[in-house]
Amino acid sequence: MAIVTLTSDWNKDDFYTAAVKGIILNRCPGTILVDITNQIPSFNIALAAFQLRHSFKHFPDGTVHIMAVNGESNDMQPYVALKSQGHYFIGYDNGIFGLLFDETPQEIVTLKHIDSGSFPELNVFAEAACEIVLKKKLGGLGDPCNELYKKVPMLPTIEESVINGGVIYIDSYKNAITNISRELFDQIGKGRAFDIFVQSNHNRISSLSQRYGESSQGEMLALFNSIGLLEIAINGGNAADLLNLSLNSSIRIKFREAN
Amino acid sequence: MAIVTLTSDWNKDDFYTAAVKGIILNRCPGTILVDITNQIPSFNIALAAFQLRHSFKHFPDGTVHIMAVNGESNDMQPYVALKSQGHYFIGYDNGIFGLLFDETPQEIVTLKHIDSGSFPELNVFAEAACEIVLKKKLGGLGDPCNELYKKVPMLPTIEESVINGGVIYIDSYKNAITNISRELFDQIGKGRAFDIFVQSNHNRISSLSQRYGESSQGEMLALFNSIGLLEIAINGGNAADLLNLSLNSSIRIKFREAN
Amino acid sequence: MAIVTLTSDWNKDDFYTAAVKGIILNRCPGTILVDITNQIPSFNIALAAFQLRHSFKHFPDGTVHIMAVNGESNDMQPYVALKSQGHYFIGYDNGIFGLLFDETPQEIVTLKHIDSGSFPELNVFAEAACEIVLKKKLGGLGDPCNELYKKVPMLPTIEESVINGGVIYIDSYKNAITNISRELFDQIGKGRAFDIFVQSNHNRISSLSQRYGESSQGEMLALFNSIGLLEIAINGGNAADLLNLSLNSSIRIKFREAN
Repeated sequence: MAIVTLTSDWNKDDFYTAAVKGIILNRCPGTILVDITNQIPSFNIALAAFQLRHSFKHFPDGTVHIMAVNGESNDMQPYVALKSQGHYFIGYDNGIFGLLFDETPQEIVTLKHIDSGSFPELNVFAEAACEIVLKKKLGGLGDPCNELYKKVPMLPTIEESVINGGVIYIDSYKNAITNISRELFDQIGKGRAFDIFVQSNHNRISSLSQRYGESSQGEMLALFNSIGLLEIAINGGNAADLLNLSLNSSIRIKFREAN
Repeated sequence: MAIVTLTSDWNKDDFYTAAVKGIILNRCPGTILVDITNQIPSFNIALAAFQLRHSFKHFPDGTVHIMAVNGESNDMQPYVALKSQGHYFIGYDNGIFGLLFDETPQEIVTLKHIDSGSFPELNVFAEAACEIVLKKKLGGLGDPCNELYKKVPMLPTIEESVINGGVIYIDSYKNAITNISRELFDQIGKGRAFDIFVQSNHNRISSLSQRYGESSQGEMLALFNSIGLLEIAINGGNAADLLNLSLNSSIRIKFREAN
Repeated sequence: MAIVTLTSDWNKDDFYTAAVKGIILNRCPGTILVDITNQIPSFNIALAAFQLRHSFKHFPDGTVHIMAVNGESNDMQPYVALKSQGHYFIGYDNGIFGLLFDETPQEIVTLKHIDSGSFPELNVFAEAACEIVLKKKLGGLGDPCNELYKKVPMLPTIEESVINGGVIYIDSYKNAITNISRELFDQIGKGRAFDIFVQSNHNRISSLSQRYGESSQGEMLALFNSIGLLEIAINGGNAADLLNLSLNSSIRIKFREAN
């Protein structure tokens, strides 16, 4: 059974969502449709990529993912379909795919702009999704393309004993997820003691928790979450609100001298 | 595989939505359920009709559409099921169907009010949807009905060289969709030059774009969108916010004298 | 065809929702996924229980319901899977199940905490759901457990001729649903005349309606709704807003002396 997912910034539930689903069910009866999310803020490809990046691998191989998020209201960007890690992706070549995976896609094709008007998700993206569902390949969908437009994800900067990272997502519980991975932490930290400064020197965390419930109520904590990224939380509180964190807020780790 | 869609004003995700889906899956295993949207503002049948009007045709013939939006908190209105353009519709006879399609339905039946209490969507609408899924016809669901309650959609008024239209939907990007169709524009304009006045004489657009990206950043533009309606947008901006547009805001087109 | 439902407080549509769905579709192809709601306010197990309590029975027997709502940000609570009334439930043993049904579950098992990290819904709950879908039983999922953590629902207090209840849910129409059941009303009232005081002695209702449309426009009314609970509404208005009702607002019924 084929699966097609949808990630969009149609956060008002415009008829766009239903039209795309209707076309797919019409041409490919029995397809399972899954909304990754339609709550992406307009044109925010970084958030769209974040949500899909951390969920798509859980779906079966062969799943088709429609990324209906454009980087700007400018709709002149090319449309592409590609295959990566056994999954298919369809979207604007606006840099979103560089944020979505680190691997180079196995195959990329450029989709035609013909008659796409103001709603290419319907007559180009959904049609391409159907083609992939039916034929299980990209071939024939468009001309091969060698390179995608690259957008560089917001990565931490690194000094010998310091990691300067930032908040990249605030979840429903107001936990702040950062761009600092466990690998980077281990590589720079080499097992040394450390202080995590959350936005200012006043908010300091000097140990890692395994779980939210480990600290006392109302206390800040830091843990590596299920996707391997450092997360700042407050046990029983809303970290982002209480610490005034938003996207890009600075999270700085200073490792102490080993002595 | 049968498909049942749901359009409702249960915007808080009340248990009503899940109860309706549960009943349908219980009586008609394997039915594919699709939310058109559950974000309709309470009792707003015009918006509910707009969303379904522009998406239902994309679904396969035989799809059953439940319209769980009443025109007022008054629940005394008749319940109907009808067939139009190969699709089935179930809802309140509150004028919504006149806004949903221009065609006269092929067949209409009145559904019984028996025991419907405060939640007819569950014990009348969902039950009727199941009957249609199982029997693929309206016959037997209720007494034939010849006429629906009519509500007139907000249409533009027309003078010889002027179209006085209005905003009927503001989408997730804050683009303002009007009730001015391409047909009307061509019919009145007859190829003449024109000025589109967006709410006031200060906001004037004198050409049509094909795509959002055609104008310069920050500039107003007008285009006929994927559903054939005139849409006011700002490249890289939020038209509705920046131009202070809301539902019913005036959009006026004045065609110039051909000379 | 197996059905798995999801109730969560992931109201920002975090990737958590999609990851859980992906895993289930991966391990159990063809499973039908239904969102009960993902709009539960963070940690509000009473509202989560309310939404599922009044919808789950409509689903077919054997449906698996994932309750991804923890009672506190404290994640130290046990995870359980249980069977009740022919349905399966998976969640935190935080009191939510006592609010979800009055019956004692037929069977309860404790799920292992191993490696659950910060996202047990993914690697414990979703995995357990798959096991149940595949094996149609709880056996083997964990150690049997005899008792659940109990949380007492907010019940009305009763005097000889008075019921002191409260608002437990405000729906999309701003109707206020109370915890006063028709059974309790009949049992205490014994057919006597009554006054319902909505928050203060100034707002008095002395009869029951069958339907919202029965009173005149703008008038308060009370009815027993589809789930058998007393509901306060205003015909053509938003009861909760106009009467300043919120969760726990007092609804008091005083029965008159029979004479």
